[in-house]
Amino acid sequence: MCELLAMSANVPTDIVFSFTGLVERGGKTGPHRDGWGITFYDGPGNRTFKDSDPSCNSEVASMLKSYPIKSKTVISHIRQANRGKVSLENTHPFGRELWGRNWTFAHNGQLSDYLEALTPSRFTPVGATDSELAFCHLMDKLAAHYQNDIPSREQAFRFMAQEGVKLQQFGVFNMLLSDGPYLLALCGNNLHWLTRKAPFGQAKLIDTEMVIDFKQETTPNDVVTVIATRPLTSNEQWHQMSAGSWILFKDGVEVAQG
Amino acid sequence: MCELLAMSANVPTDIVFSFTGLVERGGKTGPHRDGWGITFYDGPGNRTFKDSDPSCNSEVASMLKSYPIKSKTVISHIRQANRGKVSLENTHPFGRELWGRNWTFAHNGQLSDYLEALTPSRFTPVGATDSELAFCHLMDKLAAHYQNDIPSREQAFRFMAQEGVKLQQFGVFNMLLSDGPYLLALCGNNLHWLTRKAPFGQAKLIDTEMVIDFKQETTPNDVVTVIATRPLTSNEQWHQMSAGSWILFKDGVEVAQG
Repeated sequence: MCELLAMSANVPTDIVFSFTGLVERGGKTGPHRDGWGITFYDGPGNRTFKDSDPSCNSEVASMLKSYPIKSKTVISHIRQANRGKVSLENTHPFGRELWGRNWTFAHNGQLSDYLEALTPSRFTPVGATDSELAFCHLMDKLAAHYQNDIPSREQAFRFMAQEGVKLQQFGVFNMLLSDGPYLLALCGNNLHWLTRKAPFGQAKLIDTEMVIDFKQETTPNDVVTVIATRPLTSNEQWHQMSAGSWILFKDGVEVAQG
Repeated sequence: MCELLAMSANVPTDIVFSFTGLVERGGKTGPHRDGWGITFYDGPGNRTFKDSDPSCNSEVASMLKSYPIKSKTVISHIRQANRGKVSLENTHPFGRELWGRNWTFAHNGQLSDYLEALTPSRFTPVGATDSELAFCHLMDKLAAHYQNDIPSREQAFRFMAQEGVKLQQFGVFNMLLSDGPYLLALCGNNLHWLTRKAPFGQAKLIDTEMVIDFKQETTPNDVVTVIATRPLTSNEQWHQMSAGSWILFKDGVEVAQG
């Protein structure tokens, strides 16, 4: 299994606080030693930092903890390998381009008996994970469904949510998916989220000694939603998603659900 | 214009020395202030570090100079914007997946009057550069030419070299292209390369005070080819490529040319 983290915000926001908690689970407070990755969007562009080393002692993760990259949409993942060796090509998040949009995907869970059902052709996995295969399958479905009749971003995500729910017949499938403006969280069995907005207060990480006072870090109009496999803070109220449900976020707020 | 840097080696090798010279040109000894990027392959997987800040004062570039990532194939680019604003989506290298292979592309030069000729459909630019459009065009051509009859990696590169040469009708087109094992250097007007192998000696950067003794850094069987827009060292013999020529490298050695 793995751990997921994502953020959707209405202003470029740094995710250092949450990321600091997450990377502790990558070999220290959690067993997820088999690589990690994080994608930051900046408008339609994005950049992904990846490492097949454990996040708790990764040089790149250290840099990201000390150098706050501000972004409105972030997806991160730390890995405990089940299918596919520990290597860069098996490290989430995965990315593909369709319709001039950068799609980014990360998965928590494990699928089984899926090989005959998932046979993408236009998008092909580079690595050997069930996760990347599932992502390629979803991208194939999306491209084939709309062909040259390009849907709105929201339409595309509603379609991907429906197709993602279908994958739950093959096992545990918690998914994060983004194109930059939008962020989809699909719950297989385990996803939590919370929205921080004014009045901002203090938050305390579960995995390491760190407290932040968001009043000092934000402006009154900021809206920041954080999604994680398990709650990252001990003194805030996280919402647990129900199995099979999904929420689509934009600018930190929910715009659709199912 | 921009500056290109690439490496092909027979063992995982760090590119810190050459990269240190290159990033000086990103705002200090050169005018290429409009972002930079570098892609490291590790087998079929890869990771790209990008920044729209000048490389000479980028936090991410500093980290890469102090934390040597070893790789057999690297492509790097520093940008002086001509077409497309300074932003992450306009920052090279660009990446796309085809046939389960990760393709990485960087371009030096400028094209004009190309918009009617370059109309890719399967691969679509995310940003607004002539470079990413040219890359998408080449990927479209490659996918359409072979369809489901997937070529060998070397065949695919021979095709891409031929198609790349055709783009020179639209302007200056120096290109670096890789799928991991292979690295293609196509010269529009300005590319240099050298191969370092035993007996190794000292090298001295042009752009900053730095000397390295490769005898201390290598084993006798290492073969490392470096490609750059302009020579990076002052005391080594760089080969200048002729306009319209290309060389395909694998494991640091030339495997084809045209």
